[in-house]
Amino acid sequence: MDVSLLGGTGDIGEALALRWARDTDHAVVVGSRDAERARERVADYEDELAAHGAAGDLSGCGNEEAAARGDVAVCAVPAYHLADTVERVADALGPDDILVSPAVGMKHDEAGAHYNPPAAGSVTALAARAAPDGVAVVGAFHSLPAGPLSDLDASFEADTPVVGDDDAAVETVAGLAEDVEGLRARRAGGLDNASEVESLAPLLINIGEHDDDCHDVRVQFG
Amino acid sequence: MDVSLLGGTGDIGEALALRWARDTDHAVVVGSRDAERARERVADYEDELAAHGAAGDLSGCGNEEAAARGDVAVCAVPAYHLADTVERVADALGPDDILVSPAVGMKHDEAGAHYNPPAAGSVTALAARAAPDGVAVVGAFHSLPAGPLSDLDASFEADTPVVGDDDAAVETVAGLAEDVEGLRARRAGGLDNASEVESLAPLLINIGEHDDDCHDVRVQFG
Repeated sequence: MDVSLLGGTGDIGEALALRWARDTDHAVVVGSRDAERARERVADYEDELAAHGAAGDLSGCGNEEAAARGDVAVCAVPAYHLADTVERVADALGPDDILVSPAVGMKHDEAGAHYNPPAAGSVTALAARAAPDGVAVVGAFHSLPAGPLSDLDASFEADTPVVGDDDAAVETVAGLAEDVEGLRARRAGGLDNASEVESLAPLLINIGEHDDDCHDVRVQFG
Repeated sequence: MDVSLLGGTGDIGEALALRWARDTDHAVVVGSRDAERARERVADYEDELAAHGAAGDLSGCGNEEAAARGDVAVCAVPAYHLADTVERVADALGPDDILVSPAVGMKHDEAGAHYNPPAAGSVTALAARAAPDGVAVVGAFHSLPAGPLSDLDASFEADTPVVGDDDAAVETVAGLAEDVEGLRARRAGGLDNASEVESLAPLLINIGEHDDDCHDVRVQFG
């Protein structure tokens, strides 16, 4: 499978790129607004993999090309860039493609991190509005701490809730999640349930901030 | 310590009463609007404990008396009864008492369960508004599945996030949580962070509904 990471030069993009490159045979396409920057980061990722005796099928390009190449395109950009990014690559997304949204709208105050959804109700719903008709949109990978996930020396055990209205697309993305060693998908229903999934991200930040036993907090459901 | 459960005749009240009675030496006071009903339920709880070779210090009474007797009063009533219940027992709560709010406002539609906070921002914040001045309010025990928690044959492993502005009260309630075998407290900051904690409850319901591997879902943070 070809998996693209739009904005794959950021923290969570790096983490997913490294894990998919190491743990799967998927072609991992790292996209950026700046294609040269994407190629530079891919060289870094390849060095990091080589330092761990691993390799993968990685390449870098602009976001539009990445969207065109990916069977699944993960929009790994901050929430406030999401709609713009999706609209810019819309022509490259075909009806068999899956768009994955891991972004969360948050605001921070003295108390901690708070869920701050857009008017659409959730960032995942915003992605669904911005996506071309027929493209299946799935919410996943919202609450993963990028630090431990990008540290190939660390073992990683976490669950990621997955939401979407297209069952086949949800299963494809759940499979992609579970291709990463230690990562487990948990189905949480349709896109209308995305806000409960996204709300988990600030909770994990708050626990990481206030609980002495938890840092880079991850979650498991049993 | 004396722990009271206002509305302790319901599902989550039963579960906490059974576990505290079995696992601790605390005096567990089960309150109800109907004192006779509370006493009947306590007899049921004692039978259930005896059937498992256990016993505890349990008693039943009206909510007002329960609030007066408890060093910690857990308001185990549905969210829409919370403010009423707190206001009715307000005279019985002293400045050294701790009021614990485990309730979550939810609405349900075809997609699933959704967080539906009151105008105060969270049910825990609503409890804080309804409580007399000086009573410390702590949010905890929001996302515990009552079924497995009240099944004394089942082992139980789960985390419960705890929020509150009074650090000593938070530690007292965290300790009460961890008095239950298998239950672990996770500090999530002050009352302003309660909505992120409460949002977890509908997420767990949605995962229980949609994920074939998860039922009576509980959560752990690591």
